[in-house]
Amino acid sequence: MTTTEVNDSMRNGVDTATLFATLDAVKQAPEAAKFQFRAHNQWVSGTHNRGTIADFFGVGQERSHERTFVFDADHPAVLVGRDQGPTPVEFVLHALAACLTAGLANIAAARGVRLREVRSTVTGDIDLNGILGLDPEVRNGYQGITVRFTVKGDAPAEKLRALVEQSRARSAVFDVITNGVPVTVEVDTP
Amino acid sequence: MTTTEVNDSMRNGVDTATLFATLDAVKQAPEAAKFQFRAHNQWVSGTHNRGTIADFFGVGQERSHERTFVFDADHPAVLVGRDQGPTPVEFVLHALAACLTAGLANIAAARGVRLREVRSTVTGDIDLNGILGLDPEVRNGYQGITVRFTVKGDAPAEKLRALVEQSRARSAVFDVITNGVPVTVEVDTP
Repeated sequence: MTTTEVNDSMRNGVDTATLFATLDAVKQAPEAAKFQFRAHNQWVSGTHNRGTIADFFGVGQERSHERTFVFDADHPAVLVGRDQGPTPVEFVLHALAACLTAGLANIAAARGVRLREVRSTVTGDIDLNGILGLDPEVRNGYQGITVRFTVKGDAPAEKLRALVEQSRARSAVFDVITNGVPVTVEVDTP
Repeated sequence: MTTTEVNDSMRNGVDTATLFATLDAVKQAPEAAKFQFRAHNQWVSGTHNRGTIADFFGVGQERSHERTFVFDADHPAVLVGRDQGPTPVEFVLHALAACLTAGLANIAAARGVRLREVRSTVTGDIDLNGILGLDPEVRNGYQGITVRFTVKGDAPAEKLRALVEQSRARSAVFDVITNGVPVTVEVDTP
């Protein structure tokens, strides 16, 4: 019985006992769920810049990741950069895949489904006549994004598809990308 | 004169001669500006997954970055993860800062402004009662995002502010985040 309980608690690498305890705790104290995430960025040269992700606020206090994450971004040579990192728009696609995948693993664990493999490819189509200012009819951002999942797990296909659908329905990044968020830009020129 | 020309061409680390030549080339062949960017993702365990950015399509052909970029994503312990990477929503903030900064450097170079320093912090406020399914009135994604730039360069404050404003007006990621993009999710269960 103990073995079964441990296995069940850690299904898909998700600590479901802690997951459910966290849900219960937030139900009792909804303010705990107010988070602020942050990214810092420093220009290097040309289109090359460096982002740092370290600190955030949540569950009522300032917090830090266990280590500081640093990510370079750049344009490839064909877009007049030096390819020192992915383009900013590629990071958006990565964020979407990561959010849907994390949610899928949590939801599968909560529903008692063991996953064996989850892979995805996200593609985003963009016409750079927009950002280049060459065609006022073309938007700056992606015209459309497609996520293609391959999911293997110990459940019928329809149940696996329902896990992805529930992850989509509760994905923070999917919501941001499909529905938009108000963004304020402030500039200090010391 | 040669020195001046070289300096001018490479202002802010931006090869402005190539930048303008690229603009002229796209004017002649608008199809060249149709790009497809991609991110691949593989689930590792729990909320931990790994994204790979390598290939893309642009200027009429399949292309690869000079190297493959790999990024782990995870949740921190307070969100029942193991903190093996930033959260997906933090990657969105990084993408926004990177896009605005790259555009700023290009626009400054094109307008003859030498930048000395560009830093930014992007903050995103999110109420996780949304993704936790605890409050139907709360959205899944960020409720608001703020970008705070510090810009130093050889131009008056108003001109530096105008560079940021033009970058915002032509930013692919700003457009994606503020206006939204249609996203299709497909699932294969082999």
